[in-house]
Amino acid sequence: MLILGLDPGTATTGFGLIKKEGKKITSLDFGLIETDKEISSPQRLILIHKEIKKIINKHKPDVVAMERLFFAANAKTAMDVGRACGIMIFTAAKANLEVFEYAPMTIKKVVAGNGKADKKMVQKALRKILGARVRSKKNGKTHFDNAADALAVALCHAYTIKVDKGGEK
Amino acid sequence: MLILGLDPGTATTGFGLIKKEGKKITSLDFGLIETDKEISSPQRLILIHKEIKKIINKHKPDVVAMERLFFAANAKTAMDVGRACGIMIFTAAKANLEVFEYAPMTIKKVVAGNGKADKKMVQKALRKILGARVRSKKNGKTHFDNAADALAVALCHAYTIKVDKGGEK
Repeated sequence: MLILGLDPGTATTGFGLIKKEGKKITSLDFGLIETDKEISSPQRLILIHKEIKKIINKHKPDVVAMERLFFAANAKTAMDVGRACGIMIFTAAKANLEVFEYAPMTIKKVVAGNGKADKKMVQKALRKILGARVRSKKNGKTHFDNAADALAVALCHAYTIKVDKGGEK
Repeated sequence: MLILGLDPGTATTGFGLIKKEGKKITSLDFGLIETDKEISSPQRLILIHKEIKKIINKHKPDVVAMERLFFAANAKTAMDVGRACGIMIFTAAKANLEVFEYAPMTIKKVVAGNGKADKKMVQKALRKILGARVRSKKNGKTHFDNAADALAVALCHAYTIKVDKGGEK
């Protein structure tokens, strides 16, 4: 089973693709979808749609797992992330992929064993499970953070697969 | 100029189409896009996309005006409305339509002359400008509320057209 994990954002969306074969889990790909702040908001949504579609067409995942954000630092950010989120769900659904959403605390608990784990703990757990090669491709810590969150939600799904369409856990 | 006004929601989205010829403004159509609560969230987004596309193909508006919501009663609602909003903006942008967003207070001020106008005042102003025929098609007050909000934002755009791509006013 191929799981595409997405960590939604407007400027930077992380993606991470993992393969689950029985108990064996490996990471196949991870990276970022970045949209220029100079581009208008509607064009950024079109770009996000295009890039997610490209990843789906390239890797043909069986399912999409996304981090469900319930609130953001401010209402404008919440609304903007919500828009980007909507495009991701729409793109997955148009490709006939089921979308599973997980709350951040659930992801941390499943991946790092602690719902209050910090970023370092989650990343340490990720490397332990997926192997040492899961490192920033751009040597930028911030960059890996986003891709790591995407790998984490994919991993969370791999560990907790249930038949529960579009539900939250 | 044909302006498509949208009042975004997840369960019920209002739409209103107005025509501006010089100083003459008339309403051409208004109504609701309703999605069943029983349908999964991804499928509802697909439905919203489909219906907006249908309205755009039917009426061929020149521009889309939307109410920009900055916050909602709760974070989950904000996120859900944000998703639906994202789909509407995406659909308009894919049809090469510019999207203009207006804050609720701006709409009330432009349409009813008072940024703190209540629903009744806005609807009274709408009927005065667009004519007595602007009434609920379903005889349901709630139903007209949503379509009225869509007509109001279209009207707001008609009165305040500026070259300001995707901006907020």
